[in-house]
Amino acid sequence: MNVNAEIICVGTELLLGDIIDTNSAHLSQGLAELGINLFHRETVGDNHDRLVHVLKSAIGENDIVITSGGLGATCDDITKEAVAEAMGLELVLHEPSLRRIEEHYRRRGAVMTENNIKQAYLPQGAIVFDNEYGTAPIIAVQKDGKTVILLPGVPRELIPMFDEKIKPWLKEQFSDSTIVSRNLRLYGIGEAAAEDVLRDLMDSYTNPTIAPYAKTGEVLLRLTARGKNENECNALIDSLQEKVFERVGEFVYGIDVDSLEAELNRVLREKKLTVAFAESCTGGMCAKRVIDVPGASNVIGMSVVTYSKEAKIKLLGINPETVEKHGTISAECAVEMAEGLRSLSGADISVSVTGVAGPDTDEGKAVGTVFVGVASPRGVRVSEFNLARGKREREYIRTLAANAVINEARVEAERL
Amino acid sequence: MNVNAEIICVGTELLLGDIIDTNSAHLSQGLAELGINLFHRETVGDNHDRLVHVLKSAIGENDIVITSGGLGATCDDITKEAVAEAMGLELVLHEPSLRRIEEHYRRRGAVMTENNIKQAYLPQGAIVFDNEYGTAPIIAVQKDGKTVILLPGVPRELIPMFDEKIKPWLKEQFSDSTIVSRNLRLYGIGEAAAEDVLRDLMDSYTNPTIAPYAKTGEVLLRLTARGKNENECNALIDSLQEKVFERVGEFVYGIDVDSLEAELNRVLREKKLTVAFAESCTGGMCAKRVIDVPGASNVIGMSVVTYSKEAKIKLLGINPETVEKHGTISAECAVEMAEGLRSLSGADISVSVTGVAGPDTDEGKAVGTVFVGVASPRGVRVSEFNLARGKREREYIRTLAANAVINEARVEAERL
Repeated sequence: MNVNAEIICVGTELLLGDIIDTNSAHLSQGLAELGINLFHRETVGDNHDRLVHVLKSAIGENDIVITSGGLGATCDDITKEAVAEAMGLELVLHEPSLRRIEEHYRRRGAVMTENNIKQAYLPQGAIVFDNEYGTAPIIAVQKDGKTVILLPGVPRELIPMFDEKIKPWLKEQFSDSTIVSRNLRLYGIGEAAAEDVLRDLMDSYTNPTIAPYAKTGEVLLRLTARGKNENECNALIDSLQEKVFERVGEFVYGIDVDSLEAELNRVLREKKLTVAFAESCTGGMCAKRVIDVPGASNVIGMSVVTYSKEAKIKLLGINPETVEKHGTISAECAVEMAEGLRSLSGADISVSVTGVAGPDTDEGKAVGTVFVGVASPRGVRVSEFNLARGKREREYIRTLAANAVINEARVEAERL
Repeated sequence: MNVNAEIICVGTELLLGDIIDTNSAHLSQGLAELGINLFHRETVGDNHDRLVHVLKSAIGENDIVITSGGLGATCDDITKEAVAEAMGLELVLHEPSLRRIEEHYRRRGAVMTENNIKQAYLPQGAIVFDNEYGTAPIIAVQKDGKTVILLPGVPRELIPMFDEKIKPWLKEQFSDSTIVSRNLRLYGIGEAAAEDVLRDLMDSYTNPTIAPYAKTGEVLLRLTARGKNENECNALIDSLQEKVFERVGEFVYGIDVDSLEAELNRVLREKKLTVAFAESCTGGMCAKRVIDVPGASNVIGMSVVTYSKEAKIKLLGINPETVEKHGTISAECAVEMAEGLRSLSGADISVSVTGVAGPDTDEGKAVGTVFVGVASPRGVRVSEFNLARGKREREYIRTLAANAVINEARVEAERL
């Protein structure tokens, strides 16, 4: 089955650039996973006539149109009316929705306005999905073989509702085969180098396929197969994965994991180990990222940011002579920071980081110079990195430094 | 002058949702600042025919079309060819570009391929802007009163080139009046409440205008004026700002500042003060955000993440009895954390935070309960916040908690 879809985002705030559109990427990825083609995405403001025009053309050219935004209770919210007009349908009162809205206001002790009642009017024959994350109606409208799905603009409603309700429904309606994707996450190799090594596989394989994506300081390789069922897809992917591992296996740190810190969390929990960081140039990024992962309290109890020389000496017990002789941005300092942190934190793995994030050189060291120290029951080691990438890249260098720190912790945990 | 523009993003990776499009928001904001209308934004894949079709329609309906992406040296990069076809122009060799590319490869000791030479072929009569941030050609093509501007897809090339070269050029070509915007940043009031209080000003003012935008836990009020010159615009904004301050002045923490942490940095530097954090539920976010701001080394030397009970006792010297009696999520614990941090760090302002980010309740305290302690030469104080917002909001609560912490530090710095 060859199914084409288009996404239309509605909202003047989007057009003014005051909001970055993260919904589109999420919806696009979901459609790709269902094997539904997406050739075109559009963003329009809160203007009825323009929206109707864009909708008509999108409905004409596609099987499915998904809108995001413009479903609230104010007069700016025009999507439902525009969809009804574009499809030639009346808006009729949907009793269950009215009762749901009444119940919502009754519970809050608030008074319903005419606009709230307006929310219960839906295009004739609309399929209603219960919105568990807000009050906007989430509906699908079908006519003459065309489907229009209306989603709210707020990501914290749209994303879970799409994943939990709309995607399974689309799969049932539009997908006669199963598509399985597997994501290999690579650290330590660039996208260009990975492409070079994998080029012939990328070119020759059509099912399964392999596609590389650059993430900040990482590469994601997506293997995707289409087949009759999950088993068939997985078998196809397994055989391709074997070939991929022969070439870049040493760089793969995880399969279907979200990030370096998620994989670190997994390994630490599996081995019942803890980690701590002593951060200079990364300034708390490493701790933040590790604590972003659910269940972090099992793997991290303490972490410190020692940004100044004085903090390194006072909190971590660095020898002032080491600083005088080698500077704070040095392998020697990184080693003493890791050792000092180990005594302070009692963590199984103590990782230190000191470096130059820029924009200016520091202590005569080039921008991008970063030292990472690791102390564990295996002893102490230190690695030097050069992470410079052109100018104006302070944030980028700090992110790459945090990647290096988290990866070193992960490697150490694997070895313990 | 009424000038209409459209933005077209080119790239299959965008359509597959593997990249979140941040370029569009930046370009849209820039156009809004120039008073150029934007009614429509589109995203298409790396498909020549489809791109030509979309370009022709956009050129037909607008004065300016800006493309982003598809300018590299590979065969996927099709924007230049599609623009030439859509405008009915030949591609001709542009000698200075060829020399620039040759020089680039000569310096790197690399060999030029035919594809690299292809990069030097540009639509007839193209205006070339020197790309200081990469090798992709950045050009404007004008014909029959229509202008098409081709920008690369990489944000770290597109954003500075648009700001430094394209925007001033567009202003010269298309703007006969000056537009000035001023951003007031508010903390402590929600978007809905701010709108309620300002509704009549929003409705009655057309020049200057006032528009509120919700940021995470903050509100941005943008005052925008159009006039003959900057002075005239500023005078218009001043008079509206006075009215706005009468109503919500107590919540305004900064004018044309980037964030709470940028304003904190400014106040601390002005008063030559330092800050330190003892973070529990925020896990390093506060330190990270303060160190994100350039010049952070003047205002922060040290910070700690005390995630576990043991870390709070060991590093900050919390009395174990306090923990036993009140729990770690308590005003009492926050006070002792702030005091302990003050001794440890020697910072002028020591701020502690302990709370429940969720998803589960902790120590019998509800999700969203957060205590912030502040110790400074003025003494010690503690504030309790309830930051819960529906379910699945761990990240959101942590961000709001970090906002509260940074704001408390800012308020304390103002008072010292």
